[in-house]
Amino acid sequence: MFKAEQLAQTLHQLIEQGVWKPHQKLPSLREQAQTSGYSLMTVLNAYQELEARGLVFAREKSGYYVADQNMQPTALDRIEDSTLQSNIQMNSFVFDYLKSIQPTNILPFGSAFPNTALLHQPKLLQIVAQHARRKQSYESSASMPPGLLTLQQIIARRYSLQGIATEPQDIVITSGCLDALNLSLQAVAKPGDYILLQQTIFYGTWQAAERLGLNVITLPEHPEYGFDLEKFEQCLQMYPIKVCWLMLNSHNPIGFSVNDDIKQKIAQLLAHYQVYLIEDDVYQELYFGSKKPLSVKYFDQDHRVLHCSSFSKTLGAGFRVGWVHHRKLSNQIQHLQLMSTIAVSPLLQHALVDFLSTHHYEKHLRSLRLQLERHKKLFYRYLKQHLPEECDVYYYPSGYFIWIKLPKHIDSTQLYQTLLTHHIGIAPSQLFTVNRQQQHFIRLNCSFELNDQTQHSLATIIQTITHPS
Amino acid sequence: MFKAEQLAQTLHQLIEQGVWKPHQKLPSLREQAQTSGYSLMTVLNAYQELEARGLVFAREKSGYYVADQNMQPTALDRIEDSTLQSNIQMNSFVFDYLKSIQPTNILPFGSAFPNTALLHQPKLLQIVAQHARRKQSYESSASMPPGLLTLQQIIARRYSLQGIATEPQDIVITSGCLDALNLSLQAVAKPGDYILLQQTIFYGTWQAAERLGLNVITLPEHPEYGFDLEKFEQCLQMYPIKVCWLMLNSHNPIGFSVNDDIKQKIAQLLAHYQVYLIEDDVYQELYFGSKKPLSVKYFDQDHRVLHCSSFSKTLGAGFRVGWVHHRKLSNQIQHLQLMSTIAVSPLLQHALVDFLSTHHYEKHLRSLRLQLERHKKLFYRYLKQHLPEECDVYYYPSGYFIWIKLPKHIDSTQLYQTLLTHHIGIAPSQLFTVNRQQQHFIRLNCSFELNDQTQHSLATIIQTITHPS
Repeated sequence: MFKAEQLAQTLHQLIEQGVWKPHQKLPSLREQAQTSGYSLMTVLNAYQELEARGLVFAREKSGYYVADQNMQPTALDRIEDSTLQSNIQMNSFVFDYLKSIQPTNILPFGSAFPNTALLHQPKLLQIVAQHARRKQSYESSASMPPGLLTLQQIIARRYSLQGIATEPQDIVITSGCLDALNLSLQAVAKPGDYILLQQTIFYGTWQAAERLGLNVITLPEHPEYGFDLEKFEQCLQMYPIKVCWLMLNSHNPIGFSVNDDIKQKIAQLLAHYQVYLIEDDVYQELYFGSKKPLSVKYFDQDHRVLHCSSFSKTLGAGFRVGWVHHRKLSNQIQHLQLMSTIAVSPLLQHALVDFLSTHHYEKHLRSLRLQLERHKKLFYRYLKQHLPEECDVYYYPSGYFIWIKLPKHIDSTQLYQTLLTHHIGIAPSQLFTVNRQQQHFIRLNCSFELNDQTQHSLATIIQTITHPS
Repeated sequence: MFKAEQLAQTLHQLIEQGVWKPHQKLPSLREQAQTSGYSLMTVLNAYQELEARGLVFAREKSGYYVADQNMQPTALDRIEDSTLQSNIQMNSFVFDYLKSIQPTNILPFGSAFPNTALLHQPKLLQIVAQHARRKQSYESSASMPPGLLTLQQIIARRYSLQGIATEPQDIVITSGCLDALNLSLQAVAKPGDYILLQQTIFYGTWQAAERLGLNVITLPEHPEYGFDLEKFEQCLQMYPIKVCWLMLNSHNPIGFSVNDDIKQKIAQLLAHYQVYLIEDDVYQELYFGSKKPLSVKYFDQDHRVLHCSSFSKTLGAGFRVGWVHHRKLSNQIQHLQLMSTIAVSPLLQHALVDFLSTHHYEKHLRSLRLQLERHKKLFYRYLKQHLPEECDVYYYPSGYFIWIKLPKHIDSTQLYQTLLTHHIGIAPSQLFTVNRQQQHFIRLNCSFELNDQTQHSLATIIQTITHPS
């Protein structure tokens, strides 16, 4: 076994140094044995070790191939221009969709939440139980905006550690990220105002625009960088935009993260054009690798950014505790909160404080990221191997969504409905865009174990795409 | 002691039969001893027993008086007419107020929540702890509108038991009653619509009207019945009212409950004028005596009533789980919910189901009612004895608020600010009405033990009223 590890290490370096390129076929077992002088069994063990490390993948009856590591992502579609959308009507479709994938017998590839098996922390639940047992009065401070002071402090410290100077009073605790986003939007926009959104974006964003009766300017994705700075500035020049709402890390549904240079330039443009940004950073903790991505908030000298996030994507929907970070608008947001959602359960806030005060959360995040990366890679490889060539499979190293472009003749909403009859949920692009040219994409939740059941379901999805009835 | 009990029983009957009337002075100890032939000590013991039963009260250096039992409530002020209010601005004052009474060193006579010592059910908390310990997945159904089916079923059953035929799907679970009320209002009214409100009402109602930009018609209280049917119909005739928002049981802040005949007539008028009613019935369980009051919903043949309530006033703000009951609008309310608060913590919903499925809740309610009645009566007697005569103290047999009319020259907002410096919170009428003629009322939360500390604070309030600085 020692020899196998040695060989694996050598090959690992070849791949890392780029000598062997992604999708390149590895020498056959026999060739490799001959070249290296190792036994066939040793070579097989080495290849399997590389596969376990996620560096290579096996294709049936064909051999081993180098996996995409720093995958140069497939370029996104270039949609020519930004457009004005005045009468958004997304909510009813979203509502029916969410109801349809709700039954427990529907495989949750369409869900927006990560696999709960990865989230249910025994330690956290133990703390909740302890708090519930204590007969303390949790009524006073935590049940009013801005929420529990000790929780504000802990969140502020996490920002400060990333280099964003933050005071506890800059943080308003909310009922999840969507509440933070909605309150932020209400704080800066009123019916009829102009808002800039990414052309493809999480349905909650569309619903918020619909609810407030906003005029929406859509910004197409940049094929390479995800975010098109040039078009962004054009929009700021052309339209009386009051506020933007952007997702730049682990974008939902596509998955890309925008690089830090672009974020810095966005911050500069916001300051220059005096436009607010609602930054939806709910997936900020779900990066793969060692470096947490920055946010536009990091570059926000001019207090234009309302930075929103939550614990619900790392601890589960049962911990729908979010927050918004903005010094000057904190009071206004609390005023709005007092007229609507008021506060998160004090019990959950107190339990969270205990959990976050220790290293439990960091430990949980590390393990969550590793597991998500493993699942996502296995899903990606399976899809890449079995989907017809005309499909594009977009893999980015963060989060748990994979975005797939189907052949243009396939209507993804119809596909979703067909798959429902097989008890499989997928998220069609109609949930994420109002652009009629983009109805052939789907988002898959890849946070699940690739076992017989899930693999069989993926096979059904692929089969239905390949041979639409 | 047996003799004393016998005498107490005899006198108890005299009071019950109305031979001795409320506020009538009892014979002095000496007179009673002479008449009855009992010893002075026996008479004293009997009087003390009656006092403990809440039937008589002692006035210093004066003797014993019969307490108001079926108190004929003091007539409310007659404010002449309904008025149109187009630009409600209540939220900022409410916000500052709630912040000001939040510190734990402020005595919570101004709070809207009952004394948490009466609410923290060991049994309920034990169930929460059990649920938290189980590593179940609570993510799926309970985290989407309309909430957990088993909770809908239990609430529906409670309605049916009161004679209101209800299906589980008529119930939408919300984040507390205020969320239910706000969602209901959004479901039936849009900015600029006309809404009818009681002239004196819970600030959340004003905030909701402010938030939606509604035109508010205020309906003055009926001096005797609390609700003025005649003026109500006049308003429905005069204004294009889309929806009413009323509180008819254990009205906050005044405390009255409207009788069932009036509720029935309200239902008829709603049907006739095709107007919706948002019925805030959050205190429905806090009646004293044996009969639960009905609601307008009970008489609602025409589906005009959105009936809203919650567990937060019986189980605490930590259990901010409410609901709205309306068959036809259920789907629309869920759509709105999906764009805002989404759902209550599944953990709390599951724990509630377990708690409500047993007799724990009924037992808790019975004990809560008895304790609230005891506290409220003791507060009332103390206030009645010590407040200057020109103050009216409104006592009604439900809930835990006492509404006090001060002499007209006293500004209750100033009084509240002065008392804050003594670390005492009270709720001034500015929180409940936009009528400038009514700034000399206060609401006291009387759900606390009348001990040395609370009595001393009441004395400070009375002192400040009697000798304003």
